[in-house]
Amino acid sequence: MLSMYEIIRKKRDGLRLTEEEIRFVIKGYTKGRVPDYQMASLLMAMFIRGLDENESRVYTDAMLNSGQIIDLSDIPGIKVDKHSTGGVGDKVSIILAPIVAAAGVPVPMISGRGLGHTGGTLDKLESIPGFRVNLTIPEFKERLQKVGACLIGQTEEIVPADKKIYALRDVTATIESIPLICGSIMSKKIAEGIDALVLDIKTGSGAFMKEYEQSKELARQLIGIGEQFNKRTMAYITNMNQPLGNAVGNWLEIKECLDTLNGNGAEDLVEVTLTLAGTMIFLGEKADGIEDGIDKAREILRSGAAMDKFLEIVVAQNGDTHFLFHPDQYPKARYETEVKASTAGYLKQIDALKVGLAAVLLGAGRTRSEDEIDPKAGIIIHKKAPQKVEKDEVIMTLYTDNKQIIPEALKRLQDAIDYSETQPIPESLIFEFLDTSKA
Amino acid sequence: MLSMYEIIRKKRDGLRLTEEEIRFVIKGYTKGRVPDYQMASLLMAMFIRGLDENESRVYTDAMLNSGQIIDLSDIPGIKVDKHSTGGVGDKVSIILAPIVAAAGVPVPMISGRGLGHTGGTLDKLESIPGFRVNLTIPEFKERLQKVGACLIGQTEEIVPADKKIYALRDVTATIESIPLICGSIMSKKIAEGIDALVLDIKTGSGAFMKEYEQSKELARQLIGIGEQFNKRTMAYITNMNQPLGNAVGNWLEIKECLDTLNGNGAEDLVEVTLTLAGTMIFLGEKADGIEDGIDKAREILRSGAAMDKFLEIVVAQNGDTHFLFHPDQYPKARYETEVKASTAGYLKQIDALKVGLAAVLLGAGRTRSEDEIDPKAGIIIHKKAPQKVEKDEVIMTLYTDNKQIIPEALKRLQDAIDYSETQPIPESLIFEFLDTSKA
Repeated sequence: MLSMYEIIRKKRDGLRLTEEEIRFVIKGYTKGRVPDYQMASLLMAMFIRGLDENESRVYTDAMLNSGQIIDLSDIPGIKVDKHSTGGVGDKVSIILAPIVAAAGVPVPMISGRGLGHTGGTLDKLESIPGFRVNLTIPEFKERLQKVGACLIGQTEEIVPADKKIYALRDVTATIESIPLICGSIMSKKIAEGIDALVLDIKTGSGAFMKEYEQSKELARQLIGIGEQFNKRTMAYITNMNQPLGNAVGNWLEIKECLDTLNGNGAEDLVEVTLTLAGTMIFLGEKADGIEDGIDKAREILRSGAAMDKFLEIVVAQNGDTHFLFHPDQYPKARYETEVKASTAGYLKQIDALKVGLAAVLLGAGRTRSEDEIDPKAGIIIHKKAPQKVEKDEVIMTLYTDNKQIIPEALKRLQDAIDYSETQPIPESLIFEFLDTSKA
Repeated sequence: MLSMYEIIRKKRDGLRLTEEEIRFVIKGYTKGRVPDYQMASLLMAMFIRGLDENESRVYTDAMLNSGQIIDLSDIPGIKVDKHSTGGVGDKVSIILAPIVAAAGVPVPMISGRGLGHTGGTLDKLESIPGFRVNLTIPEFKERLQKVGACLIGQTEEIVPADKKIYALRDVTATIESIPLICGSIMSKKIAEGIDALVLDIKTGSGAFMKEYEQSKELARQLIGIGEQFNKRTMAYITNMNQPLGNAVGNWLEIKECLDTLNGNGAEDLVEVTLTLAGTMIFLGEKADGIEDGIDKAREILRSGAAMDKFLEIVVAQNGDTHFLFHPDQYPKARYETEVKASTAGYLKQIDALKVGLAAVLLGAGRTRSEDEIDPKAGIIIHKKAPQKVEKDEVIMTLYTDNKQIIPEALKRLQDAIDYSETQPIPESLIFEFLDTSKA
């Protein structure tokens, strides 16, 4: 008979767990038969000792099978999703989903909420009045079939094990483990019913993984699991030292998405979005290669077809399109303050982590899961590295309803800016492309 | 402000915890402010990453200060206790305490119950009708002053942190950690109000620590903590491959203690007891050296003074002495079965772990903490390595009220016996003496 004690002891001593043991743990914990303290102890042992390739596959599979796996086989086409490990100003999903759907590739997308200093697609979409992210699985499928893309939050039926385990990892300092992250991400993505997946692994100050080698290892292991489940998986490692695009904060980012869909996107945001979208179009077999996919994505964006698809998605998910046509009529934050250059020179970097934390402070994120978000709050970045600025030139503008917090936020944003006397070498935006775990 | 999350994260990453952090954890957990799952996670990180010398000292001190420290300063003399890491047939405390007390050295002894395959002094003493191990601290002090020795169980007031942490370690596979063991043992010993301590670190199959190097490391670290608290501490590493003496089981062991106190002790039991007792007498400054202490202990045993003191201790703790004078009148186990040699040859070893587990099965120990113990149950060992036996010669006799379990117990005991065609080299009984952590 299996015993949780013996399983903890094995992993504590660096031994490999059997398939039966891993399934026993995940099922037992999900059903409430394994107490939190034993699970916490095991998670720490897993964190420190790691899981090998086979353990990691079984762990993902056990998570996946803790709930329902959406069957999308009756929807024609190769279903492709994108997953980002999260960053600051990362609104790529919202622009990319309509592009890819417009190319004829169905995009079933289950997204998350803001976490720590990183924003969440669901929070951004909910800044559009009426937009429903909490659809049931039949509602989700219906819209996916009709519109070609649907963006929702995790439901009760999808990977319930992850919800419980993630909550425990969150309070026991066991989040940043590559195999545990892999299990959490891949089980949810596979449960969506996808056929293929593109990963955007962020690296740098504002990313979850700050070290390049760690980010690459995460990419490799995520791809490895995708391969084991016969889901074609490709990954990009992208730069998250600076926020992506110019807006940080929920409605501010939706506005930036509208600008981008209207052809006025920031260069970095457009480049990342088109690269990921093009790769999805290729995986969905609507292009002859990634380059061709990117060309198609660019054309869909340019032609306005992506904007049309975006409006279609919003309407299908009960969103009110009024502010999408009249963004200037959206309620304004009560306070608006400029962050000015303290010196003349080149911008060496605007630190993504510090900007993300300042945005949370302004009301754009949560410090506890029960916190309410202010959709109007956030930061617009006017100048980024490696641009040149004059002393007192406005680099950022912050928006908030909370007057008290402004001095602290200003201090943090000033602190986020790094100057250089000489012109800095621009950093790469996309560092690496991986399409097999053996790379 | 201190955060449990940050403390877990630090230890997870192999960093050193500060004094403030360790005290925050122990206090917080004892007071119920730190939840079990966070403590479990930290304990696993501590288990795998370890604690350095300073962390270990602070951990012990924080445990110690979670409760009351008994003040024995009004009792004259140097108070000396002995602690054994536990074994099978280890009834040394019950013979040693009266010897040392009879030499004029006060012995304040807080003992434990049987744990797994190892027996517990309290369970053995309680096989004497009426014997009270649950004295209050004033009652304990009063008897110590009057009689010179008192043997009780842990009270609510003494190191409450250990009780709670030990229970959690017990279900999260974090018991066998040297620094955590050190904190648990030394906090309780120091809380007794001792001035000096002799440690009996068991090593081998029936011991808690089965590897010699680990046992030695435990001895070193225990002595190190003793030194840091200015408690003179000496340690012996002794053999626990075979049970100590001939009896395993609570009343059976008390009977063996009576035989030993009457001058008819088994050679191995007498040697270990006199060595530890002699060292205590030396530490208590009633002998000029350890050898002199051992000589004095031997004389006290021979003269009957130890037996007199034992009876005095029993009476002081409300025990009924009737069966001590008439051990043959003690209730008998319902079933008595012989374990015979399956072949002729030399006994190479009678495995202590297997004997201990068989004794638990017979009713002498607990598999769950709420189990009742049968004081009559156990095993008498008639022949031990390296003795010669004929085929079918009786090697052991088992005693139990549980008929059903006999076949399984017999099987395990047969399995515990290892034969050799050639005469085996006798193993050492006392491997090593350590009196400073730098050894």
